[in-house]
Amino acid sequence: MTTVHFDISMSLDGFITGPGEGAGRPLGDDAGRLHEWMFAAKTAADAEVVEELYARTGAILMGRRMFDVGVEPWGDPPPFHGLPVFVLTHKARQPLPRQDGTTYTFVTDGIEAGLAQAKAVAGEKDVGIWGGAKIIQQYLNAGLLDEMQIHLIPVLLGNGVRLFEDLGPERIELKATRAIETPAARHLRFTVAKGGSYHPGG
Amino acid sequence: MTTVHFDISMSLDGFITGPGEGAGRPLGDDAGRLHEWMFAAKTAADAEVVEELYARTGAILMGRRMFDVGVEPWGDPPPFHGLPVFVLTHKARQPLPRQDGTTYTFVTDGIEAGLAQAKAVAGEKDVGIWGGAKIIQQYLNAGLLDEMQIHLIPVLLGNGVRLFEDLGPERIELKATRAIETPAARHLRFTVAKGGSYHPGG
Repeated sequence: MTTVHFDISMSLDGFITGPGEGAGRPLGDDAGRLHEWMFAAKTAADAEVVEELYARTGAILMGRRMFDVGVEPWGDPPPFHGLPVFVLTHKARQPLPRQDGTTYTFVTDGIEAGLAQAKAVAGEKDVGIWGGAKIIQQYLNAGLLDEMQIHLIPVLLGNGVRLFEDLGPERIELKATRAIETPAARHLRFTVAKGGSYHPGG
Repeated sequence: MTTVHFDISMSLDGFITGPGEGAGRPLGDDAGRLHEWMFAAKTAADAEVVEELYARTGAILMGRRMFDVGVEPWGDPPPFHGLPVFVLTHKARQPLPRQDGTTYTFVTDGIEAGLAQAKAVAGEKDVGIWGGAKIIQQYLNAGLLDEMQIHLIPVLLGNGVRLFEDLGPERIELKATRAIETPAARHLRFTVAKGGSYHPGG
């Protein structure tokens, strides 16, 4: 069965971008700080975490703002390993094929319809909700997320876009399923606990 | 040398209390959720984390609001293992001795003076800045903190008091030094990197 996940680098104080995020600057100031583990500070264990993510993912969903902010710096081919990308937006637009197999497809009928389209092409693989924060929050609040991986970075940025904000009034129980430690990140996996309340020690 | 630390349970979305925190309800709604690892869900490894904390701590510092909100539910004797507690406040007040050795001492001349007093009685042991969030933020911003341990709880509370807020404009680099996994928490330790910029991979 297709699992719906997100996978994101977050500072210990909860930010997924630095301050000053905007068009052409998808990660704000300190742009590289949260992603050193994928570049300058990458170890074999970090590389494996990335490879595993691409291997399990069959389609990517993202918000219109993330697309607008990112499309230029990502370039052509974009860094999605040829995976199909569905962009949730309010404005209809023709699909935008890229050189390496990735096509940006624009979905205007909401998060459930977007997920259904992504699932249809993902086959047995997973659908990744790759951001931004607002879209992740919408899928979390709608109970449509199964799993998350957070690359927890040992830095306090103090400002930027928060990953977890505007969540609904109900608390969301998670289950910690895996942790991988590398020098630059703690790769933490959680599944979302569904149907049933929390039982301490259970 | 005395290390200055804090040690606190935090939800994955960054909250150290549930919603509705206030006088007589120091942890808000869902009061017990963040601390199950110390009670109903406690394992031997969790117990060791707590014992270690008390063994290393020679004095506790807290803010006036945490004191006001907590003093009644904590009762007499309070749950501080007889350690001296310094309360940062603007209003002078006589020391308040408790039955088991803990005395609440009220400090009116600021966070540095409070830390100096706590260090003087801590001897070779550590000073613990045990909250609330605002006091921890002040010590962080002033560069007076050496270490932190965060008990990361796999739950999204959606609301409450955030641990990391109103930090200064400079990012604060940390070093991840230890992680202990238990069923109910990830006990994550960090030291604050002092004097010197971040070097990826270094």
